Parts: sequence; C-alpha cells; structure tokens
Amino acid sequence: MQLRQDAQKIWQQAICAVQPEAAVRRALQGAVFSDRVHLVAIGKAAWSMASAACETLAEKITDGVVITKYGHSRGPIANLRIFEAGHPVPDENSYAATRAVIELVKPLDETDEVLFLVSGGGSALFECPLISEAEMADVTKQLLACGADIVEMNTIRKRLSCVKGGKFAELASPAKVFAIVLSDILGDPLDMIASGPAYPDSSTCEDAMQIVRKYGLRLSAKALECLTQETPKTLSNVETHVTGSVRELCAAAQKEAEALGYTCQLLTDCLCCQAREAGSFLASIAKTHAGTEKSLAFLAGGETVVKLTGNGLGGRNQEIALAAAPGISGLRETAVFSFGSDGTDGPTDAAGGYADQDTEKKLRALGISVPDVLQDNDAYHALGKVDGLIMTGPTGTNVNDLAMVLIRR
Amino acid sequence: MQLRQDAQKIWQQAICAVQPEAAVRRALQGAVFSDRVHLVAIGKAAWSMASAACETLAEKITDGVVITKYGHSRGPIANLRIFEAGHPVPDENSYAATRAVIELVKPLDETDEVLFLVSGGGSALFECPLISEAEMADVTKQLLACGADIVEMNTIRKRLSCVKGGKFAELASPAKVFAIVLSDILGDPLDMIASGPAYPDSSTCEDAMQIVRKYGLRLSAKALECLTQETPKTLSNVETHVTGSVRELCAAAQKEAEALGYTCQLLTDCLCCQAREAGSFLASIAKTHAGTEKSLAFLAGGETVVKLTGNGLGGRNQEIALAAAPGISGLRETAVFSFGSDGTDGPTDAAGGYADQDTEKKLRALGISVPDVLQDNDAYHALGKVDGLIMTGPTGTNVNDLAMVLIRR
Repeated sequence: MQLRQDAQKIWQQAICAVQPEAAVRRALQGAVFSDRVHLVAIGKAAWSMASAACETLAEKITDGVVITKYGHSRGPIANLRIFEAGHPVPDENSYAATRAVIELVKPLDETDEVLFLVSGGGSALFECPLISEAEMADVTKQLLACGADIVEMNTIRKRLSCVKGGKFAELASPAKVFAIVLSDILGDPLDMIASGPAYPDSSTCEDAMQIVRKYGLRLSAKALECLTQETPKTLSNVETHVTGSVRELCAAAQKEAEALGYTCQLLTDCLCCQAREAGSFLASIAKTHAGTEKSLAFLAGGETVVKLTGNGLGGRNQEIALAAAPGISGLRETAVFSFGSDGTDGPTDAAGGYADQDTEKKLRALGISVPDVLQDNDAYHALGKVDGLIMTGPTGTNVNDLAMVLIRR
Repeated sequence: MQLRQDAQKIWQQAICAVQPEAAVRRALQGAVFSDRVHLVAIGKAAWSMASAACETLAEKITDGVVITKYGHSRGPIANLRIFEAGHPVPDENSYAATRAVIELVKPLDETDEVLFLVSGGGSALFECPLISEAEMADVTKQLLACGADIVEMNTIRKRLSCVKGGKFAELASPAKVFAIVLSDILGDPLDMIASGPAYPDSSTCEDAMQIVRKYGLRLSAKALECLTQETPKTLSNVETHVTGSVRELCAAAQKEAEALGYTCQLLTDCLCCQAREAGSFLASIAKTHAGTEKSLAFLAGGETVVKLTGNGLGGRNQEIALAAAPGISGLRETAVFSFGSDGTDGPTDAAGGYADQDTEKKLRALGISVPDVLQDNDAYHALGKVDGLIMTGPTGTNVNDLAMVLIRR
C-alpha cells in the first residue's frame, strides 16, 4: 500500500509542476515588460498559458489572441480574443484566427512587446497559408497519409505558411517577441515545436524538395514556388524561454521521491524505444537492485512507441508497466510505473500504468497472461482489473512521459 | 582513439575473468578434498574446466570422464577419459559417454568424492535415456520443432533421463558431490543448467503432462510412464558453487573501467529485452549524461534477443551497438558497445559490436542507413566497415553478454 501511495504522490507532484499555469509563472519570474504587451497564445495549452500570463502581468497586457483546439477553451480571459480551431488538420477557424494575429502584430513598432505562448498542436492551429486553403488542407492530408514524420511535415509546412519557420517573428518585427515554449518534443527542438513561428529555421529548400520527391507529393506550381523561398536563419527580436519540458517533469518527480526517502538515479530524459521493451529493461534494473538496503528510484523520462500487434485498448505508458510486471513479480516492495503528463495515455482515460511485485500474480489468478495481453495491445483492461491504472484526468499539458522504478525499504 | 582503447581493455579483462580456467580456480580456492577425487566434467567448457581442475588438484584426481561438444576437446588430460558428443541433439556418443560416467560413480562409497564440473550444453551431452535412444532423439526433435522453451524442454527431459533433474547425484550417493557450475542462464537457476544433474528438481510430473498436452507431443507408453515418476526434491550429498556467471563478467568490467577512471553504475545483470531496443535505451542514457564532467560508465549484463526481420548477418550484441549509433551520434566521446563472453555473437566470428559518436556519420558517408541495416539484421557487415566489430575469437566460455555505455572526459 505504502509503495503505491509513494508512487501516486510522485506522479501527482510531477504532473502539477509541468501544468501550463505553473510553467508560465516560472518562466515569467524576473522578466521585465513594458506597459504595452500584446499576447499571442497558440496550441493545446494556449488557454491555460494565457490565463496564467494575464494573472501575472495583469493590465500590462493590452490585447491579444488565443488559438486552441476545439473544446480546449474554458471561457473569456480579460481583453483577449479566443478562437478554437482544427487539429491535427487546420481548418477555416485556424486560418481566421491566424489572420487576426497577423493583424494584431503587423502594425507594432519597436516600443511594443509580444508575449508569445507556444504549446504542442500549434502547427495546425496557427496557420495562414501562402497557397489556397484548399491546397493547404490537401498537402497536410497527403503528408499524414504517406507517413511523413513530424520533421518532414514541418519542413514542408514552414515554406507554405506566412507564420511558421520564424516568419511570425519577422512579421512582428520591429516589436520584441518574448516567447515561452511548453515543450512537447524530446530535446526541445525549438524550430520544430509548433513549427517554430518565432525561431530561426534550420531546414533548407533542398530538404523540402527531397521530401516532395520521397513521397511523390502532388503540388501546384504556386506551392512549388513557395518551397524555393528560404526561411529566416537568424532573428534578432526574439527571446525564448523553454518551460514545462520533460526535464522539469523528471526534476519534480525526483524532488518528491527524495522527499519520500528514495535515493534517485536519473537514467535518461530522452528515452525513445518500444514501450514494452522499455518495460522489460526497467524490470531488469529493478530485479538487480531489489536486494538493496535503502529505498531506490530510477527515472526515465521521454517518449516510447507502441508496437501495434493487436486491437486492444492501451497506451505506451500502460504497456511499460504491464511489460515490467513479470520481471518484478515476487520481488520485495518493487514497482514500475509510467505516465504521460497529458493524463491521456493512448486512446484511454488513464494517464498510465502501475505494476508492482504482486501484479502478475493477481493477473494470473484472473486467468490473464501478460504476454497475451501485450500481444493484443490491451493493457488498459488488464491493468484496470488489478488497480494498475493511473487516473489523473486530462491535465491540459503535454511534456512527454515519465517511467520509474521504485524499490522501497 | 582513447575511448575505443578503453572499451577494448574493458572487454578483454571481463572476458578473461570468466574463462573456465580462471573461474574453476576461483571456485576451488579454499576447498579441501580427500585423496580420492573422481572428476566428471560436462558441457561446452568441460575440457577447459577439467584441465584447470587437474592443474589445481593434481594427483588427488584418481580418474574421471570429460564430455564435451565435437571439436571442443584440446587433447588428453592426465588420467581422464575424454568424449566428444552431439549438441544440441544428443547422439550415440552422448549416451556412451554418459554410461561411462554412471559406471564410474555407481560403485563409489562415502569415502569417495566426485568433482562435478558443469557448463552450458550439458543437457544434450550428458544423457542416458530411460526410453529407447531412438525415441529420446525423436522427443528432443519434437520439442525443438514445436518451439518449446528451455524450461519446458528440461522438464520433459529430466523425467526421461537416468542422470538429469538431480538423478546423477542420487546415482553417485553416498559419495559426496562437489559441483562447480559455470552459469550460462541468467539468474543461475541451478536446476536448469545442464538440466540440473546434481540439483534438486523443482518441476513436477503435472508440469510435464501439461507440456505434453500443450504441444501435442507423441510419446510411447514407456515414456508416459516415466513422466509420472517424481524427481528428487532434496539432495544431502551435494555442495554447489556457481562461478563465471554474468555477475562476475560485470564485476570484472566494472573493476577495469574504474581503474581507467570511469565512475561506474551497474544498471542490471539480468537484462532481457529486444537487442535493438536495448541499444536505443542505452543511447538515451548516454545522451542525457553526455554533458557530464567526469568519465562515466553504465553496465547492463544479461542476454537480449534479436527480432528477425531480415536475412542479413549479425548477432544480438552487434544489434545493440548499431541501434545505439544514431542516438549517440555527434555527442562528445561517447561509446555504446556490447559483447558475448563466448566470443561468437550470433552466427558470426565477432564477439559483439562497438559504436561511438562518429559511427553513424561514417556509415552515412558510405551510403549505409542504420534503420535499413537493422531491418535486414545485417549489423555484421555494416559495423565491419567502420571498425565496429569486437573480435576476440571463440573464448570457450559462455556466461551471457555485457553491454556498456562509456562517456570519456
């Protein structure tokens, strides 16, 4: 019981620390603004970030635009205009909202400041195409359909857009842009998050043309012409602060675990491999250290991938915990758990999964075989039967996942 | 260059420490024997273990039998009879050699001692069936063909054999048996190694019948009758020493790394997951700690599995190193390497693979893509082109593998 309570305290504290509100407040600490701050917030966490900024800066914020995903706004905020729009495919509302942002920042001069709040999902939500909206939608669909990765998608979209790849910061110039980025990509590649509207672009026109050839994309002459226009490689009017990243998630979990008496080892904050294999690896670590005389914790932040082999219900964090269950079975007070900071692991209402030394035995008693469940990708139903689901509700943030081994003495 | 030299020193020292000769000498230290020691050595390392024991105990060893795999004997040893026999399928020579052992130990009394040297491969090499040799060969083939795991194979074979599952120690009784086991199974399950001829058997007749039903094995009435005979659950005449295990492999590597100035962290000594995913996990660890100011080493002993997706040449250790290459690319003086203590990784003449911060770049310059090579299971050819193969030659021992991250400052 105590072990699970420790785990629960750790995931709750860690998720709290990376909430958009807390993250924005941390990023604004010590920053000095003029009395004419224009706020632009984009992404799935835009509403929460804008709300926290308005509380902190109060009437310094003269006006602003918030663009978030449908259902993600929670009411009016001071004097801001709030838009909801399409994600992952941009729609009419994405374009209209983005035009409102362009109208807001274009007339600004060097005495103005733009507080630019960026979170995941911004690529679709913050978009004003240089080509027709119909073609833009078609290109996005082509890229999703052909399995292009996010780097490739963004390399193309930056060039077909008025605002991506540093162009938003160019539009706002000569006003100063103070950007706060809630990172949802491992390693915080600032030119990738929301396609980097206020960050110099490292991709090249040649990169873009290679992607066109690789996937046989169908583009108009206008679009092809856009791909030959280079994006800004430097931006002198921007100051960027990354906040709420997976590093802060790990740091907060570590702080809480240490307060509970665990000696912590951060293994990695950029884990990337198959979820169930990560679970096996973590179980191997637990097994070797289970004989310890002091309480130990091992942390692995990052983002794993699920290998689809069945039609069940689950998510990568639930697979990590379930896959670890056989390896830690029968050890003394040992748990492996993993959770996503967004509170929704895969297409489920759980944030992740928890397994301890008794989990496999309990499942076996119910006639449930862990390898079979993993083969079906059905971790949700199995963990649900043995109190192995981590339920937090949607948290409104997304800074990747954290997997942990806890050994309690 | 220095980084690779450090790595090389570490793998050489680690492999030396788990050689059968060194391991047997360590296990014999401090043991007191009478002047009538009968030696029985079985397994792939039987010759080396017997040779080291004869050097240590000299004329105390009155007689003995050595049974090893074809090509694994390296000449006469004192007054021992040396047999080579079939592996992994037992053959006529396995049966004849085992009968010679039975004749040796059956007449012994309580003043005799048996020095029993056990290494991997003993299950096939040390065998005297209770059923016809033809049926025994057929059952073994059935078990291999239906994909039974080693636990299942041994549960059946123990009951069809005169010597397995503790029955050899019963035959030798009342003589004392001093067993030295070179462990090649993670966690050293003594009833599994060589099917535990001198170890109480934990499997039951009911387990055996379940396996028969699971795979629809075809057995004679005689064989089915054998499966109902219980194996010994206690043995009072046996003293067992495990040596040369993966733990000693890790300990020796750690000692050498520390001598070279690395601060070491043992992650696990029972790693079990997919090789390429373990490589990604280790690369994630390397990436997070690459900014360190002191030299660091992370160790993961165990045995991974290769997921077959192509027809290339490679092995699990080579896949670990190659899979780690992209993740550590461009870091400062960072390597991931992995090797098998037997010196032959998969069906290759390499012991394992080595990758550092330059490996992926070198491969790319040669037009070689790491994901493509992994898909083809062709790590051997790719690593061979960038000085990434660990070559030791066959070592005559097998105590699993060791994967390491080295970060040099």
